[in-house]
Amino acid sequence: MLVQGHHRQAIEPQSDSRTALILDQTLLPHHIEWRTLSTESDTAQAITTMQVRGAPLIGVTAAYGLYFATRDDPSDSGIHAAYDRLHSTRPTAINLRWALDRVRAHILPFTTTERPQAAWAEALRITAEDIQTNVAIGQHGAQLLHQLASTRAGAQASPSPTLNILTHCNAGWLATADWGTALSPIYHAHAAGMAIHVWVSETRPRNQGASLTAWELAQQGIPHTLIVDNAAGHLMQHGLVDACIVGADRVTATGDVANKIGTYLKALAAREHRIPFYIAMPTSTIDWSISDGVKDIPIEQRSPREVTHLSGLNASNERQEIRLTPGETQARNDAFDVTPAKLITAYITEQGIRHKL
Amino acid sequence: MLVQGHHRQAIEPQSDSRTALILDQTLLPHHIEWRTLSTESDTAQAITTMQVRGAPLIGVTAAYGLYFATRDDPSDSGIHAAYDRLHSTRPTAINLRWALDRVRAHILPFTTTERPQAAWAEALRITAEDIQTNVAIGQHGAQLLHQLASTRAGAQASPSPTLNILTHCNAGWLATADWGTALSPIYHAHAAGMAIHVWVSETRPRNQGASLTAWELAQQGIPHTLIVDNAAGHLMQHGLVDACIVGADRVTATGDVANKIGTYLKALAAREHRIPFYIAMPTSTIDWSISDGVKDIPIEQRSPREVTHLSGLNASNERQEIRLTPGETQARNDAFDVTPAKLITAYITEQGIRHKL
Repeated sequence: MLVQGHHRQAIEPQSDSRTALILDQTLLPHHIEWRTLSTESDTAQAITTMQVRGAPLIGVTAAYGLYFATRDDPSDSGIHAAYDRLHSTRPTAINLRWALDRVRAHILPFTTTERPQAAWAEALRITAEDIQTNVAIGQHGAQLLHQLASTRAGAQASPSPTLNILTHCNAGWLATADWGTALSPIYHAHAAGMAIHVWVSETRPRNQGASLTAWELAQQGIPHTLIVDNAAGHLMQHGLVDACIVGADRVTATGDVANKIGTYLKALAAREHRIPFYIAMPTSTIDWSISDGVKDIPIEQRSPREVTHLSGLNASNERQEIRLTPGETQARNDAFDVTPAKLITAYITEQGIRHKL
Repeated sequence: MLVQGHHRQAIEPQSDSRTALILDQTLLPHHIEWRTLSTESDTAQAITTMQVRGAPLIGVTAAYGLYFATRDDPSDSGIHAAYDRLHSTRPTAINLRWALDRVRAHILPFTTTERPQAAWAEALRITAEDIQTNVAIGQHGAQLLHQLASTRAGAQASPSPTLNILTHCNAGWLATADWGTALSPIYHAHAAGMAIHVWVSETRPRNQGASLTAWELAQQGIPHTLIVDNAAGHLMQHGLVDACIVGADRVTATGDVANKIGTYLKALAAREHRIPFYIAMPTSTIDWSISDGVKDIPIEQRSPREVTHLSGLNASNERQEIRLTPGETQARNDAFDVTPAKLITAYITEQGIRHKL
């Protein structure tokens, strides 16, 4: 999608040098800086420090990581060890395991000499398929939004033709190779001429809504308004939200959804106000091996410092970190929560809309 | 309550100089700075800029403001004009109107010469009564917590004897003349030896949880952990919250509660998990003239800058403001939301526990 008017992807494989360019998302929205990944360790660090994040993009990036590892040590034991190291970078997103499984299964039948080339080719295929998947999610989701808009226009109580969509965190193109999951239907509907306005919830503690989603939507020219996470219930209570669309980090076989912390509170409020709550995700986000999301999905605990400190631009436009709390304050930082299937209206996947998994 | 080991109040009338000392809450937790209020305009500015905040403390402070105005112009028209100016400083908290009504009604029967003295005396009485009220709220609320703890200890599924209370925003002694509303039961129960731990939700956008409640609890030696507002549903889902206690800015005759934005989302989650949700408030917070909170309570809209910018300490321990978002980002900042009576387990008032208003 657009970065200062030019089409870019969140990860750009360089076939001549066998490296991959990523946009360092920890510096957005204030600095646009591309980094080159050329080793497994680069890649693991980019995932752990969240220079790349978002379940689909973590998967795609890890595929290149396993290529780098295979290039350096194509033995079975080398590949298995690299798989384990890359797999341990983030615990919740299932796409990480899915992509690593896929690359490993693809390359093991080859000779050690052929393996690096096979890994690179598979990483390229995973990237291309992620983009196709997200386009399909966008097309199916845009149809859903068109239906929603025409139902609303048919109802008497609709004063404005603009559809108000609430999203949480960032499940835009920055969370995937391109297009995004939750934002792809919005991009597609907007391109087809639908009047859309997006409520962007800031998504504490890492503020991916405020720093990534608001930036993406601005680059793409989509009308949007930033709100604090606390405001979602109030807006719904006042009829200002027509639908919620969020992404997913892992979905159980029964449809429970792990997504960014705070998703669950929004889903509870949406049910209270009979507002449709959609999960947009590739089917690779489904973990068919588990069913009870609250019990079975591992929830990543991140540093309390993400809660007590924040970075932004100071008055001289320099990046600055500040501490918000008294020095001795203890904080707890669960990165995800689980929204039970009963609160979810439908899943927008590349295969179409599913009301149940 | 305690500030660095010394007992202080959030507002301290100085009877010799006829001024009032306030703790500047916009500088907490990093700087402890007391300011002297000596004019109506000082007072209005302190309320508008939230150097003092919290419904009960806004009321108490406004009473001194009306004294200052009466000292300078004790005529009927002077008093009415000052009433209007002070009343317009914050729209949602009803205690502001209650305190202004009370001072005005008290002083109008006096001669213009006697009015200033009568206003000062009434402001002192309002302050003293606020403290008594909050002590009574604390005693009634502590009984409730003792019952909760013994019920829990009786249940088989209680692994730990510590009661986990979640609160939102700051309804501690900083929101009142002293003791607080929501935190007063916690202070009283803690003083009586009960094992309590408080989940402090940071309360975006102004972070009164992170900067005021965490500071108050630390000064008082109460175990607590800071969380982002997004985490409340997740903690409840995992059995980590035994009760919620929050304050109120205005309560309708039917029990709907306007309180800090985000209260409503927590109340919805508490109902889902059958966790008691208590409102601690003086009965002066009830606006008997209205019944439908969502329709009838005016919700203050504050500057979008409170969402897009934040202040804290930089690495050199200097106060610094940073911008979080892309420069052009539009934000919406509703300061309060309304929790319908159906989601509230009970109201902890100075007159006792009421399950219904």
